[in-house]
Amino acid sequence: MEFDFMRKIYFLLFLVWCTNAVNAQNNVLNGMPMPAHVQTNNAKCRVVKSFSAAVVGHPGQRVYSATTRTLRRLDERVGLFFKQGNIANIDTSHNATLLVQVHQPAQLQLYEDESYQLQISDTQIRITAPTDLGALHAMETLLQILSVDAQGYYFPGVNITDTPRFAWRGLLLDVCLHWMPMDVIKRTLDGMAAVKLNVFHFHFSEDQAFRVESKVYPLLTQLGAEGNFFTQDEVKEIIAYASDRGIRVVPEIDVPGHATAMIKAYPALASIPRKYELQRYYGVFDPTLDVTKEYTYQFLDTLFGEMAALFPDAYFHIGGDENTGKDWENSPSIQAYMQQHGIANGHDLQTAFNSRLLPILNKYHKKVMGWDEILQPGVPKDIVIQSWRGGDPFYASIKQGYTALLSTGYYIDLIQPADYHYLVDPAPDSILLSDEERKRILGGEATMWTEHTTAETVDSRIWPRTAAIAERLWSAKEIRDVNDMYRRLDIISLRLEELGSTHLKNKAMLMRRLSNGYDTKALEVLVDVIEPLKIYERNEGDTMYNVFSPYTKIADVATPDQKVARSFRNLVDAYLVNPQVSVQKEITGHLQLWQENDAAFMQLVQRSPVLQEAVILSKNLSIIAGYGLQAMQYLNGKAQPTTQWKAAATTALKKASTQGGRCDLQVVTAIEKLVNAVKVK
Amino acid sequence: MEFDFMRKIYFLLFLVWCTNAVNAQNNVLNGMPMPAHVQTNNAKCRVVKSFSAAVVGHPGQRVYSATTRTLRRLDERVGLFFKQGNIANIDTSHNATLLVQVHQPAQLQLYEDESYQLQISDTQIRITAPTDLGALHAMETLLQILSVDAQGYYFPGVNITDTPRFAWRGLLLDVCLHWMPMDVIKRTLDGMAAVKLNVFHFHFSEDQAFRVESKVYPLLTQLGAEGNFFTQDEVKEIIAYASDRGIRVVPEIDVPGHATAMIKAYPALASIPRKYELQRYYGVFDPTLDVTKEYTYQFLDTLFGEMAALFPDAYFHIGGDENTGKDWENSPSIQAYMQQHGIANGHDLQTAFNSRLLPILNKYHKKVMGWDEILQPGVPKDIVIQSWRGGDPFYASIKQGYTALLSTGYYIDLIQPADYHYLVDPAPDSILLSDEERKRILGGEATMWTEHTTAETVDSRIWPRTAAIAERLWSAKEIRDVNDMYRRLDIISLRLEELGSTHLKNKAMLMRRLSNGYDTKALEVLVDVIEPLKIYERNEGDTMYNVFSPYTKIADVATPDQKVARSFRNLVDAYLVNPQVSVQKEITGHLQLWQENDAAFMQLVQRSPVLQEAVILSKNLSIIAGYGLQAMQYLNGKAQPTTQWKAAATTALKKASTQGGRCDLQVVTAIEKLVNAVKVK
Repeated sequence: MEFDFMRKIYFLLFLVWCTNAVNAQNNVLNGMPMPAHVQTNNAKCRVVKSFSAAVVGHPGQRVYSATTRTLRRLDERVGLFFKQGNIANIDTSHNATLLVQVHQPAQLQLYEDESYQLQISDTQIRITAPTDLGALHAMETLLQILSVDAQGYYFPGVNITDTPRFAWRGLLLDVCLHWMPMDVIKRTLDGMAAVKLNVFHFHFSEDQAFRVESKVYPLLTQLGAEGNFFTQDEVKEIIAYASDRGIRVVPEIDVPGHATAMIKAYPALASIPRKYELQRYYGVFDPTLDVTKEYTYQFLDTLFGEMAALFPDAYFHIGGDENTGKDWENSPSIQAYMQQHGIANGHDLQTAFNSRLLPILNKYHKKVMGWDEILQPGVPKDIVIQSWRGGDPFYASIKQGYTALLSTGYYIDLIQPADYHYLVDPAPDSILLSDEERKRILGGEATMWTEHTTAETVDSRIWPRTAAIAERLWSAKEIRDVNDMYRRLDIISLRLEELGSTHLKNKAMLMRRLSNGYDTKALEVLVDVIEPLKIYERNEGDTMYNVFSPYTKIADVATPDQKVARSFRNLVDAYLVNPQVSVQKEITGHLQLWQENDAAFMQLVQRSPVLQEAVILSKNLSIIAGYGLQAMQYLNGKAQPTTQWKAAATTALKKASTQGGRCDLQVVTAIEKLVNAVKVK
Repeated sequence: MEFDFMRKIYFLLFLVWCTNAVNAQNNVLNGMPMPAHVQTNNAKCRVVKSFSAAVVGHPGQRVYSATTRTLRRLDERVGLFFKQGNIANIDTSHNATLLVQVHQPAQLQLYEDESYQLQISDTQIRITAPTDLGALHAMETLLQILSVDAQGYYFPGVNITDTPRFAWRGLLLDVCLHWMPMDVIKRTLDGMAAVKLNVFHFHFSEDQAFRVESKVYPLLTQLGAEGNFFTQDEVKEIIAYASDRGIRVVPEIDVPGHATAMIKAYPALASIPRKYELQRYYGVFDPTLDVTKEYTYQFLDTLFGEMAALFPDAYFHIGGDENTGKDWENSPSIQAYMQQHGIANGHDLQTAFNSRLLPILNKYHKKVMGWDEILQPGVPKDIVIQSWRGGDPFYASIKQGYTALLSTGYYIDLIQPADYHYLVDPAPDSILLSDEERKRILGGEATMWTEHTTAETVDSRIWPRTAAIAERLWSAKEIRDVNDMYRRLDIISLRLEELGSTHLKNKAMLMRRLSNGYDTKALEVLVDVIEPLKIYERNEGDTMYNVFSPYTKIADVATPDQKVARSFRNLVDAYLVNPQVSVQKEITGHLQLWQENDAAFMQLVQRSPVLQEAVILSKNLSIIAGYGLQAMQYLNGKAQPTTQWKAAATTALKKASTQGGRCDLQVVTAIEKLVNAVKVK
């Protein structure tokens, strides 16, 4: 995984200059993830009706499909009605506009070569790659750099060589807490491929549901899925779809905790005999497998055997997180077993359990992964640790000799901004690691837990932020310019729509629904500056929401990383450093809009009472915008502030951090900065 | 199917008065289809957090599911977090807010009782229905009349008794010309249920593809579907989903023409030995089954037997349309057979074919349907005729003793306006029919052929116009007020979004794509007044499009029934009758916007050359808007027109009907009216 950092920076700077000087729509620098090496030239490969693609070398079906899709996706943008249909054979004429040369088809496995070279001249686009995986990545890069000038569409002259920094670049999708049907899975896989992610972590067993058909244990879905599950044929379809896009599918069956659905279906697995129902709320629950019974191991051996055959990937995830241990403590037979076997506590019992699962899964030729709770003294070194509880255990596990994967910092369900995730590095310079240790960092995984996300809103929780994480896992660690990341995130966001992502369109749709058929404008203005409560604040005490709750409210239409709010914060920062008139005008424009919006919003609430819960946000926004406007006047010396004014403003700003509809305002601190900048004599 | 028309009109008028007088957001009159009898009272049944639903009587699973869905859909609108989970049992307490009483579960079959009564008092909503089908319809009506006042959400006091005019209210969806995946099917079924349609006509065999798995003839999909087909499990899922919503699924296997995919998979079926490939273009093709071979009958017997078992509905559609007869004419063996058996021509041969299929399908307990071409002398009377080629053959078939279904006038793929479809009546007063004959009119079916429609655009071709057809098939024939239909269509259009329809959101999405990341405003202004070429004009000579063509262009973002254009036409008509200042201002506002829009649009085209094809539309719009503005000045006596001016305007208007991007302007005739109204001395 070599890369040439200084050379790259040099070219980037050169390109910035070229781009500004020559043509604002040359997209060489708009891609995400940023490639390792980019060399430009003045060529322009025009996209015309006779555009064609050909595959040479020793390709597999994957490259044929991907090249055909590339052709269609390109034509859907340029609208030229290319003549070529499906690509299904080697074409040795070498005359095609896009020539894809592949040395050999890849095995979908960790550390497979994903590198590629993309060369564009006036007459041809040449992709060369050791494996088809590289060729797929190259085509995604190609589609990202399509450019426009006065003569029309073209691909800019470039020589890109590229390879990922980390071999494991994943996204976990939880299909249990809310059901995610096939179309969600497929468009998620398409989006992943577009940003060069290569592992789909399929989280399908939970307290609320078990969502993959077992033919050996059919009750798992008959009693544990309420009709919403994937048949084995559908799982095969998902795996084939993913494989076609160069994405591995790693299954997770979470044991011994988070297993209420399994226990409801097969109560003999339970630690405590009681009536089991699927969990309807979200959080951490007590039902736990009885790991002292032989039945449990026979059951898991059979189930894992079936699932190991269904999922071809070499890795198998056994969860292991958030076992409360209470059911073990309350079971006399388990306590007796522990005493008999000298097992001191629940942690040790879980480690004993894991140690028995390991040979079972090894028997099925699987490598085992688990969440970082499984990292207890005595856990075998060949279990891969997925870290979610913080960076320290992650690096501790690496230093102890484990191979590990980072998810801490990539919990996209927690509604944190993209720049937060972007700056989390799996192998930061601040941690002293040997080369050997560094090699044991496989990469990372974004995690999409779906407590507060339905099929309608899940895309807006995954995209575009996950593209920033994808870049962190693919590109050089020195690529950390947050502003440039946000600039490119806006571009990739629109490109993801082409692949079916609903993150933009469902936001508009939900606003129409929330506005009850009336004009959405007042709602839009408010939504632009609010975000859902972050981390675990939205579901206070784990009691506000359950699986029947409506997820069509203002907290569902609001998204992370609200652009208007971010841009306002940047404007204020810029203004306070250098109070330019143009910036001042932009700021007051925003503030006036917000101040006046409340009247229109209140009218809308009369017509759509579901918005009532957001009234406090709208009122507070109006009030603090008013103070912001006054602050701007004072800052411009147009009036003289009083101590009373500043005290009142400060009080109002404090009040404005109150939540409404499980959201809060994202411009409070920026307005506070304006108020604080006002000097009272 | 009695109904009380004068009483209804009386109540409607009364309601209009009440509605205007009391509360503009009482939605009793906003429903679609309009119920048969509506009686209002002053009650208001408030929707509060403790809202609950219960089912009593002798319901089946269908009512439990539907009531649960109703609860969730309501909560997703009002956002109150109802406490009730899934409904799965009889609740004899009779205390629920919504009480659903069902006499017995329905068989999903023609002429099953679909009537219901819906009574709303201050404290309770009571639905009573002979079958669960009626209860399902009642719940859709209920969700349509949710109202709002200053105290919040309520259901208005009402006593509705309702029953459909026609027993067969269908929608054909062609999944062959373009692939339509499961999510399209499901959301289409949800939309159908919302407007009380009850037959899903599943058109899955064509020249371009065969899209339902056969286990007996697996090559049908292995060679005939390019990977895009429904497995038998998925078909069962579709049927269950439809059944859950009270919708029958009628399969169509189109024979002996439109059968290229079948022939490619099993060439022994062919009339002419040649190399067969799936058709890539659209239109009518020669490949035809050889109906003189015993193999063909054995094949169809086996295939129909398999499909008859898969699809439980009593009806089975054998297509029979658009057989060119050429392959039969060119086959020496077929010609010899015809001579030998005294068969005079292709029509007679097809009739002989149909006569042999009939007993095969009867053996599998199926009634047979076919397109109106099969209506030839000698065709058995128990074949149901589906008319698509015009009203005359339809009524002729009725008079000849056939049972028939109308699709002529309901071809929604042809982009005609909703009012055109709305006014087509399957049993109009203008046709003299006996009661007996009238009874043989089963109803009608909207047909969604998908040549020029992908999964991304199909919803905008189906909705909301199909709701107008649904009303025609359900409601009294006297309900024909086009303006009121359009008013309600806007409302139902938004309600259909709640069920997942993408007809609004994908329009916005396609505009973002077409604008290449730039502001979509100029494109929106243009798109608002253009529509795709209608009837069969878009695909000139059947050569412009094929299965690989991009359907992401301006003709795909443009929809039928553009509201801005329609409203402008209405404004002009109103103005020419009564030139009010307010109307004049609205008209000139539109014209100015259009005149000025071209500059912004041209800038956008520079950045997004895919829009180049629409430049002519934008230019012409700008030009004729200019003439329109001048006409308005002349009409206001502010200037004196010249003969030259009028001639120039007329020429420009003539030119403005030129297509661009397979669309045309929808405001030309309206502006022409303004110009024509100008008197030159």
